[in-house]
Amino acid sequence: MVYDLIIIGSGPAGLAAAIYAQRARLSTVVLEKEYMSGGQVVNTYEVDNYPGLPGIGGFELGMKFREHAEKLGAEFVNAEATRIELEEDGRIKAVYTDGETYRAKTLVLAMGARHRHLEVPGEKELTGMGVSYCATCDGAFFKGRTVAVVGGGDVAVEDALFLARGCEKVYLIHRRDELRAAASLQEQLKKCGNVEFLWDTEVVSISGEDHVDCLKIRSKKSGEEKVLDIDGVFIAVGTIPNTGIITELLHLDTNGYICAAEDGKTEIPGIFAAGDIRTKQLRQIVTAVSDGANVITSVQGYLNSNN
Amino acid sequence: MVYDLIIIGSGPAGLAAAIYAQRARLSTVVLEKEYMSGGQVVNTYEVDNYPGLPGIGGFELGMKFREHAEKLGAEFVNAEATRIELEEDGRIKAVYTDGETYRAKTLVLAMGARHRHLEVPGEKELTGMGVSYCATCDGAFFKGRTVAVVGGGDVAVEDALFLARGCEKVYLIHRRDELRAAASLQEQLKKCGNVEFLWDTEVVSISGEDHVDCLKIRSKKSGEEKVLDIDGVFIAVGTIPNTGIITELLHLDTNGYICAAEDGKTEIPGIFAAGDIRTKQLRQIVTAVSDGANVITSVQGYLNSNN
Repeated sequence: MVYDLIIIGSGPAGLAAAIYAQRARLSTVVLEKEYMSGGQVVNTYEVDNYPGLPGIGGFELGMKFREHAEKLGAEFVNAEATRIELEEDGRIKAVYTDGETYRAKTLVLAMGARHRHLEVPGEKELTGMGVSYCATCDGAFFKGRTVAVVGGGDVAVEDALFLARGCEKVYLIHRRDELRAAASLQEQLKKCGNVEFLWDTEVVSISGEDHVDCLKIRSKKSGEEKVLDIDGVFIAVGTIPNTGIITELLHLDTNGYICAAEDGKTEIPGIFAAGDIRTKQLRQIVTAVSDGANVITSVQGYLNSNN
Repeated sequence: MVYDLIIIGSGPAGLAAAIYAQRARLSTVVLEKEYMSGGQVVNTYEVDNYPGLPGIGGFELGMKFREHAEKLGAEFVNAEATRIELEEDGRIKAVYTDGETYRAKTLVLAMGARHRHLEVPGEKELTGMGVSYCATCDGAFFKGRTVAVVGGGDVAVEDALFLARGCEKVYLIHRRDELRAAASLQEQLKKCGNVEFLWDTEVVSISGEDHVDCLKIRSKKSGEEKVLDIDGVFIAVGTIPNTGIITELLHLDTNGYICAAEDGKTEIPGIFAAGDIRTKQLRQIVTAVSDGANVITSVQGYLNSNN
């Protein structure tokens, strides 16, 4: 069988594309590595900027997107796409998973992005043992304890706010002397009595036997090193696009994102990119969802002129 | 007082911009001609493609956006913007209303678009007396009667579907021999037993004394004219952007839309466009809302480099 469309990834962009594809009556399959793969939303505590649903939980919002797509009849397959090949002069796109091959006339790449690592000694070894990339998922384990958050963007400040509610003390470690996060978030964080800001500071290493017990930090100004006794460290220093399977297929920008405008068109006719994975100025749930809609218009345009 | 930002229009784009502006702690005022002006959503019966809220009523969705913005503290002023002037080498944007002047460093144009007219005899005279541009608003008045819908896009087919539920008979009049509407909508409409399609047909005139009682139609193929006895006609032939106050300020494309990409930047620094009013491939609630988010990132970037 040759589908009209294969969507890879089932975060907000992939799910919105699935919703629009169902409404357009395109034969579609969504391949997802795991449940709502590409969906960082699932690990977000509270989402207050998806218009119409103020203050909704990230997991609940992800579920609403998923249920919306399912209600319209979208087909999901739990399988990781491992290779993409072009057949018949590129008119057919073949997506390989472990054991199966799916073929379609068009392809929407919506694999999203993932957490960036600090790349310091101890980080990898202690992941899951006090090193976390998701305060929402793991924060509750640190109730009454002392933790550090590393980063200066919205996510770092949101994580620190979340942790400050339950932890004894929260250090916010940032390599610059000001935060990039939204002013409203910063204001909230500065009101917390148990948050200490460590500016111009970088993490040198993470230590502990079976569990994190301290961080070595260094001042970027004086070079002075210091040890912080902590029970956990939450790393929120950004994300990198999940472009592993298409690096040989498509040209990427210097940060690794797929070069595509809001219509999602890539350099290969019939292959489109939607959501966090493409070049754009603002990576948010609402911009991902908008991409999902836009990309289906592009898919329909391609199918209309190539069928 | 000089605001950081004036938003003109309070449809989905303007409201999303207000939400993001509040979160960014920008001093903002939203000028709206009427309640949720620029918001065609208000007149939409059912919205099934805003991810996360399947099958919601248009008015209800508009209200949710509005309440979200109000919950975050957005300031609304009920006033029509009648003129925009640049002051102090363009650093200050002055927006005039009847009696007041508002000044800001930046401006978001989110005035949306409005219904296109057929421009045939009888249309203007009988508007509100059987001629309507909104089946959701006026359809209930025609229960058990015979009506015509003019157009071939999503809105026309949605209107016809809505009317077919309550009316005795619905004619769908389209000047081409196929519909542009989504396949799923077309399928639904074709299942209705009381809908008659009139292809390659245009409306010549609309007649009636105090109320519409017939349409003169003409076959575009044979030139043959014919009179249809009807009680109402719903015109759904597209929209035109509400760019009246900025035609002398900004360059518009051939269809009258403001030339701007997804970041909303116009040719004038500090003036941005969001939603249906700008050039884009897909005008939907979700793309308007995404614009509202994007444009605030652009506003912040402008303010950061011009303050």
